[in-house]
Amino acid sequence: MAQDKSFWARRRRENGLIYFRSDYSQGAHPKVLEALIQTNLEHTDGYGLDVHCAHAGQMIRELIGVRDCAVHMMVGGTPCNITVIAAGLRPYESVVAVRSGHVYTHETGGVEATGHRIVVMDGVNGKLIPEQIDRAWEEYEDEHTTLPRMVYISQPTETGSLYSRAELTAVAEKCRERDMLLYVDGARLGSALTSRENDLSLKELAALCDAFYIGGTKNGALFGEALVIRNQQLNDHFRFMMKRQCGLLAKGRLIGVQFEALLEGGTDSIYFTMAAHANRMAEALREGLAELNIPFYSNSQTNQVFPVLPADVVRELEKEFFFYEWAPERDGKIPIRLVTAWGTKESDVQAFLKKVREALI
Amino acid sequence: MAQDKSFWARRRRENGLIYFRSDYSQGAHPKVLEALIQTNLEHTDGYGLDVHCAHAGQMIRELIGVRDCAVHMMVGGTPCNITVIAAGLRPYESVVAVRSGHVYTHETGGVEATGHRIVVMDGVNGKLIPEQIDRAWEEYEDEHTTLPRMVYISQPTETGSLYSRAELTAVAEKCRERDMLLYVDGARLGSALTSRENDLSLKELAALCDAFYIGGTKNGALFGEALVIRNQQLNDHFRFMMKRQCGLLAKGRLIGVQFEALLEGGTDSIYFTMAAHANRMAEALREGLAELNIPFYSNSQTNQVFPVLPADVVRELEKEFFFYEWAPERDGKIPIRLVTAWGTKESDVQAFLKKVREALI
Amino acid sequence: MAQDKSFWARRRRENGLIYFRSDYSQGAHPKVLEALIQTNLEHTDGYGLDVHCAHAGQMIRELIGVRDCAVHMMVGGTPCNITVIAAGLRPYESVVAVRSGHVYTHETGGVEATGHRIVVMDGVNGKLIPEQIDRAWEEYEDEHTTLPRMVYISQPTETGSLYSRAELTAVAEKCRERDMLLYVDGARLGSALTSRENDLSLKELAALCDAFYIGGTKNGALFGEALVIRNQQLNDHFRFMMKRQCGLLAKGRLIGVQFEALLEGGTDSIYFTMAAHANRMAEALREGLAELNIPFYSNSQTNQVFPVLPADVVRELEKEFFFYEWAPERDGKIPIRLVTAWGTKESDVQAFLKKVREALI
Amino acid sequence: MAQDKSFWARRRRENGLIYFRSDYSQGAHPKVLEALIQTNLEHTDGYGLDVHCAHAGQMIRELIGVRDCAVHMMVGGTPCNITVIAAGLRPYESVVAVRSGHVYTHETGGVEATGHRIVVMDGVNGKLIPEQIDRAWEEYEDEHTTLPRMVYISQPTETGSLYSRAELTAVAEKCRERDMLLYVDGARLGSALTSRENDLSLKELAALCDAFYIGGTKNGALFGEALVIRNQQLNDHFRFMMKRQCGLLAKGRLIGVQFEALLEGGTDSIYFTMAAHANRMAEALREGLAELNIPFYSNSQTNQVFPVLPADVVRELEKEFFFYEWAPERDGKIPIRLVTAWGTKESDVQAFLKKVREALI
Repeated sequence: MAQDKSFWARRRRENGLIYFRSDYSQGAHPKVLEALIQTNLEHTDGYGLDVHCAHAGQMIRELIGVRDCAVHMMVGGTPCNITVIAAGLRPYESVVAVRSGHVYTHETGGVEATGHRIVVMDGVNGKLIPEQIDRAWEEYEDEHTTLPRMVYISQPTETGSLYSRAELTAVAEKCRERDMLLYVDGARLGSALTSRENDLSLKELAALCDAFYIGGTKNGALFGEALVIRNQQLNDHFRFMMKRQCGLLAKGRLIGVQFEALLEGGTDSIYFTMAAHANRMAEALREGLAELNIPFYSNSQTNQVFPVLPADVVRELEKEFFFYEWAPERDGKIPIRLVTAWGTKESDVQAFLKKVREALI
Repeated sequence: MAQDKSFWARRRRENGLIYFRSDYSQGAHPKVLEALIQTNLEHTDGYGLDVHCAHAGQMIRELIGVRDCAVHMMVGGTPCNITVIAAGLRPYESVVAVRSGHVYTHETGGVEATGHRIVVMDGVNGKLIPEQIDRAWEEYEDEHTTLPRMVYISQPTETGSLYSRAELTAVAEKCRERDMLLYVDGARLGSALTSRENDLSLKELAALCDAFYIGGTKNGALFGEALVIRNQQLNDHFRFMMKRQCGLLAKGRLIGVQFEALLEGGTDSIYFTMAAHANRMAEALREGLAELNIPFYSNSQTNQVFPVLPADVVRELEKEFFFYEWAPERDGKIPIRLVTAWGTKESDVQAFLKKVREALI
Repeated sequence: MAQDKSFWARRRRENGLIYFRSDYSQGAHPKVLEALIQTNLEHTDGYGLDVHCAHAGQMIRELIGVRDCAVHMMVGGTPCNITVIAAGLRPYESVVAVRSGHVYTHETGGVEATGHRIVVMDGVNGKLIPEQIDRAWEEYEDEHTTLPRMVYISQPTETGSLYSRAELTAVAEKCRERDMLLYVDGARLGSALTSRENDLSLKELAALCDAFYIGGTKNGALFGEALVIRNQQLNDHFRFMMKRQCGLLAKGRLIGVQFEALLEGGTDSIYFTMAAHANRMAEALREGLAELNIPFYSNSQTNQVFPVLPADVVRELEKEFFFYEWAPERDGKIPIRLVTAWGTKESDVQAFLKKVREALI
Repeated sequence: MAQDKSFWARRRRENGLIYFRSDYSQGAHPKVLEALIQTNLEHTDGYGLDVHCAHAGQMIRELIGVRDCAVHMMVGGTPCNITVIAAGLRPYESVVAVRSGHVYTHETGGVEATGHRIVVMDGVNGKLIPEQIDRAWEEYEDEHTTLPRMVYISQPTETGSLYSRAELTAVAEKCRERDMLLYVDGARLGSALTSRENDLSLKELAALCDAFYIGGTKNGALFGEALVIRNQQLNDHFRFMMKRQCGLLAKGRLIGVQFEALLEGGTDSIYFTMAAHANRMAEALREGLAELNIPFYSNSQTNQVFPVLPADVVRELEKEFFFYEWAPERDGKIPIRLVTAWGTKESDVQAFLKKVREALI
């Protein structure tokens, strides 16, 4: 059951590559690490009941302009999503999401493991539209069917697109009309907020939904997400749910300390400057690829780029860069995913574009 | 839903206290932190599929003397316990544990959340004895009852006691006889292995059970436990279970890096010297208290001490020290729990004993 | 996977025996069957939304003296118990029961399958006492523990004993004090209500608990139990829970029709005369065995009798009677369980006592 | 919480209607009832461990031409489906079904309640095609996704269509290729087997799948389905799963007795003659409606008919007939569902067609 030789060979090779694999391939931003070092020998109580978590919570309340809300420091995005859904639904209730939503595509049925159905809708450019919420309700009849009671969306979406202020407002109104909770997965929220195409402020987003999280893992933290719950009922006994769903960290303060560092300075904090940098790198990739007439699999507005490249170009690129193939080859072309992060260098982008240019010839 | 003033006042007060609250009140051992700093800007693949996790796994295989086993880097003890139990049992099967076992007392029904019963036995000095496994089987009849298929124990136990080599062997033999899996929660395994009263080596323990974990959180890591699975069937698709149960960390390498640092040098590594130090501090507390004729609530052999003190002494101590009251006051006396760790100072112990002496007069 | 010869041989042999095996070894009381025959060709809507279920519900409301309650026709006792518990608890909440309680001993972990812990107490003569509810709460601390929110008891208990009016009142008051739901499993409720030792009327019982069921399966129905829910919140979306937990019967009216027949005439109905007969038969067994100085394993006051007999006597009895051995042989003696029912004959009882007398010589 | 006056008024009205509401609106075929009457006073052991269940099992083994299989007597279709799926899948595995499949549309998330995802495909005329199984696998990547391990289909489908021998063979081959279990919901299997358009024999069906059930509830039984499991591994500890999922009936013999009566005479038994009658009635409806140029919502080949009628015609029909509106009104037309059964009379069909003719003028 140990790793065989091929594992080591593969890993050794990847070591020399330039990473566009994900926004969690490096450790933390130096300032985050510094905060962990500074506070390392402090003694505090466990499980997030410490001053750092409390302080980070206060910083977040100010940032989002909501005083009366709970802020929970979560270990990761999946525990965050699953705990919110399990806490918010009665056993026979279901959550509506798009087919590309993270809870459906990449959490190994963790939502269903808590007994709830995800009612899957196709989505439009990765986004759920109000009409699809209505369609989910068409499946509802009576006690023989599940009762859709929550909407799960991501800002930005899994494919990099953004809900505009108007779009999110429409979804939120539909939720109110249907008496459903609205939960926003903010794994890459920084990237959304600093996108040049974004018109939805953090305060507006916070005001529109019942709960959302500010993602740390994918924006310069070692790990951790700050979950904001505005809805009192959803927050009822929430820490019991966190523990039951394996989401309560013994040294919970580690997440608090990191968010203190990430958000120090508010809208001028590294949380925003890192995300803005990642977006700029993604834009540079998009623009460079567009100049080469490369089509895109998805219309991303944030730190992910989904070019569709000839299979042989992909094979060439793999020799120097590390990334995911996003969908199977079709007609000799492969959609790949490039992700930028706070640590992505301008030179990485240029190297990639250069290689594509060469390979295309 | 925000913290009120009393929270801040309480936390400010606790800040000035000496901590015997837990073995996870500080950050990481400096060498662990150093390793995280050194590797911070490396790019690696996520979810534990990196060289550091692989390397730490190899170090562990050598240390425990088992080549053919899986090593999974887990975020914490509760996810570890719940994932192993959920992976090892068929839906109608149950796990046997003592009433003081962590899965029963402090995981908010996380095991039951995966659909499984914990068959609770009273234990003898915190330990499960083979006769109690037989007794659990007396509840089994046929398809109307659950089928006990796993034994969960901790080394050391929640109350600090140790399974001797003979005792663990007897439990393991009973498990084999009954065709049950044996799983050992090693949240404080370092403390067990370095206890002066311990006669059970790591290699022996590894050879006797189907799975166990080497706890990092309570012995100098920021977080993380190294789960060893020797039983092939239990390991089948285990990473699917990890993800489903919220136990897969995006930057999984963080745990690998920490275990590399913890175990560098094998039996001479800081993992063992830290635990030995914590044990020495606990012994000093035990001896000092015994000299004052203080009785103990539990016969601990490791880094926890459970003195039973007059209520007014406890009130005095609370002004300078931070610890748990372990059980309700009875006849004017309160059992408290003192936990030592790698960061506990000799002077902390002396200060505590001095205060008790003064308060007793 | 087919039955082998030994199955047929065993079954052929049992066919000639006198049954004290259970109170569900025969079909239905002739009047119940007659009602099913009379209504057989009626067309009605399904899933219990028919006039017979509604009418039976009204009969029950009158009988128990509660107008504002829901009555659900359930297929069996186990679905009834599991659905009530799953409907009444939030994910992190637990139910308190005695170790001999049916939900713990004979439902294959069905409660845990819905994600909830049964906090098991030892009980006194099969009954839960208020002090044990307090003890269950001692396990509760905070978000690391489950929250006991329901009490499950049976009237009569699994071992045939009865809660007196004073005892049930004390349990109910403790539940109110602790803000817990009280649920009474009435699988053999008829036997309780008609026991000569009973001082708790149906109306009193109904007034004391949040929910209970009137058992049909073990008192002359083919199958079916009438669940009464007085607590509005527990009843919220209950039919969704019934369907989800596999407890909604397509031809739900069958249960309604049977309860119409069982309860026709109110306290003079066959429901009460059948149970009274079964109790008389059990008393005759108890008195006859007591005259022979046979001790009892449990102090039953209803239609179950638990004599402790020499092993060789048990072997002799097995040649002519069919019953369960209730616990393993100890010191040459075996506790057996004899169950009487509406169909038990006076001559069956006399034959059994005669055989015991002969075997004892 | 009691039924209000409108309930009684509605029910009184429905009482005078002709029922095309479902195939479970009446009790049992007289021969089935007769068998229950004949065996009523027999004493047998409980939970399906009796001679009638065993005998019915043998009859089924002969009928399907498979000696080595398990036959379990289940209370209803939903418990059957959910128990098979929960028994057959490991926690992280999922089941593939069409969006109109009963487990998805009408079981209130009962499958998800056991922790498993239903991967929903759109289906072609209500049927799953091999390409859609491949598509379900496209969602599978690795430990971040569920693993499709079972296919759930119905014969006939929820919308009345049939898998031809070639179609079922193709699905079965795809399952073998993908190492998936194939389970067939046979709630209306009699109707499929006796359809004039059917070319798939019971023996062929049995040989192609891992498990299926022969539905009783919708074809002349009071309740009950006979589940056949050919796959040894799926059958492992299956009775534990039945009990845990609330599917084990105390007087289990009732189902055995009914299937003895239903299948007496094999292919000449009432099971087949009843279904053939229901099909003929459905055909008469279809032909009559087709003559009136009424279009159909679904291409049913069995005992369900789905005409799309003008809304005002539907309103007229509702005065004399009881049926479901199957989908919302669109462009002034409403699809309704008519179901025929063993008790449907030729005169009912003629009355319906007459009324449509009149209403259309």
